[in-house]
Amino acid sequence: MPRYRLIVEYAGTGYVGWQRQAEGESIQGTIEAAILRFSGERVSVYGAGRTDAGVHARGQVGHVDLARDWPTRKVMEATNAYLQMARARIAILAVEQVSDSFDARFSAIRRHYLYRIIVRKAPLVIDRDRAWWTPRPLDPMAMQSAAERLVGRHDFTTFRSANCQAKSPVKTLDRLDVSIDPRDGTVEIRATAQSFLHNQIRSFAGTLKLAGEGRWNADDVSAALSARDRAACGPVAPPEGLYFMAVDYT
Amino acid sequence: MPRYRLIVEYAGTGYVGWQRQAEGESIQGTIEAAILRFSGERVSVYGAGRTDAGVHARGQVGHVDLARDWPTRKVMEATNAYLQMARARIAILAVEQVSDSFDARFSAIRRHYLYRIIVRKAPLVIDRDRAWWTPRPLDPMAMQSAAERLVGRHDFTTFRSANCQAKSPVKTLDRLDVSIDPRDGTVEIRATAQSFLHNQIRSFAGTLKLAGEGRWNADDVSAALSARDRAACGPVAPPEGLYFMAVDYT
Repeated sequence: MPRYRLIVEYAGTGYVGWQRQAEGESIQGTIEAAILRFSGERVSVYGAGRTDAGVHARGQVGHVDLARDWPTRKVMEATNAYLQMARARIAILAVEQVSDSFDARFSAIRRHYLYRIIVRKAPLVIDRDRAWWTPRPLDPMAMQSAAERLVGRHDFTTFRSANCQAKSPVKTLDRLDVSIDPRDGTVEIRATAQSFLHNQIRSFAGTLKLAGEGRWNADDVSAALSARDRAACGPVAPPEGLYFMAVDYT
Repeated sequence: MPRYRLIVEYAGTGYVGWQRQAEGESIQGTIEAAILRFSGERVSVYGAGRTDAGVHARGQVGHVDLARDWPTRKVMEATNAYLQMARARIAILAVEQVSDSFDARFSAIRRHYLYRIIVRKAPLVIDRDRAWWTPRPLDPMAMQSAAERLVGRHDFTTFRSANCQAKSPVKTLDRLDVSIDPRDGTVEIRATAQSFLHNQIRSFAGTLKLAGEGRWNADDVSAALSARDRAACGPVAPPEGLYFMAVDYT
């Protein structure tokens, strides 16, 4: 049974998130429905990461097993055609055949996320639902200093949702960088790790925004981390700023 | 009667265009309705350019006269509040008081537009309605060479809609540049002139795409220009790629 790796883009607005749920439209379920329509096969698509409702992806990765040996181009074009027909905000960017040992989730060695914050007085219009809007100025240097306190191997209990299902709160954060898009001034937070806890990046973004506003300094962030207490976290940033960008495999 | 200059952003999808029409929601009419709600004044907002249905703006400029001398901050915040309440895809980015001699349309000395083309095999999802999608590769150098044939003072009859109301088809095109966004590969066409004919930039974009595909060369573009014949134009590009970016005043 051939296995296919899919690179997936989606606008998460209006979806219940990646994962199939009892109610509402999921990204996973919508892709499975499109594959069923072209292939007649009832399949499961496994994703590298379970994004929440409203979170976007530019490079989610999934794998799926199909009974028939479809050409990769056919899988991509037919799935996209049915996604378009269903007016889904989902597209398959690339498809390749992979060995049975490839697993979108368990073979991943690094996951890359981007969190976008747009600072301006007027509400967002063109970027509505695509970034976190804040009217208050942010100091990106202060955000970067705060971010550096979080990089490395730590117990991230402070930055973990109460619903998180990971066995351990200890994770290694490879990268947490703050930069400014020179074209439009958007504040961009880039995070890389082998894996993340539930709500970890949105918890980082909410905390870094406090640092950018001068309400917290880097030591406050260190203290929050050391507290290992969910209550010590800054507010969790909203989902619309978050993008799942890419996954690395060996 | 104080006059206010407004900088306006909008996502043109779903609107009939800038200008009020007998049917459908216009940008102009929606802003006027928001101003009426906060001020009780029935006003006309005059724009620097009449964008078509589906065309976006990052920096449309308008002017409006109000009977009462509202603080600029109040005009901006109250108009935005009512626009948000109406779920309009319109925001006022800035407001200042200007003299009676200022006219958003007639005082303009240069208008700047951007046309975005995204080249990839998969349909657009995050950028749907925000760019022209094409699956065929484009050669930006060939597009740039073709674009240079159009810069300067010319009779642009070829690149003008049959509905164009301008008195003369002769215009001076100050700039027509093709570049690639290094972050995501988007093809960006930037056009500047004191004023444009109706559909002129979308006609340029459609023609430059033919050049990018190798179906036309720069001489074909020159021949089309010299023909002064609408039928010699390439296909008119769709509205969703076009952004009214900024207006310069003396």
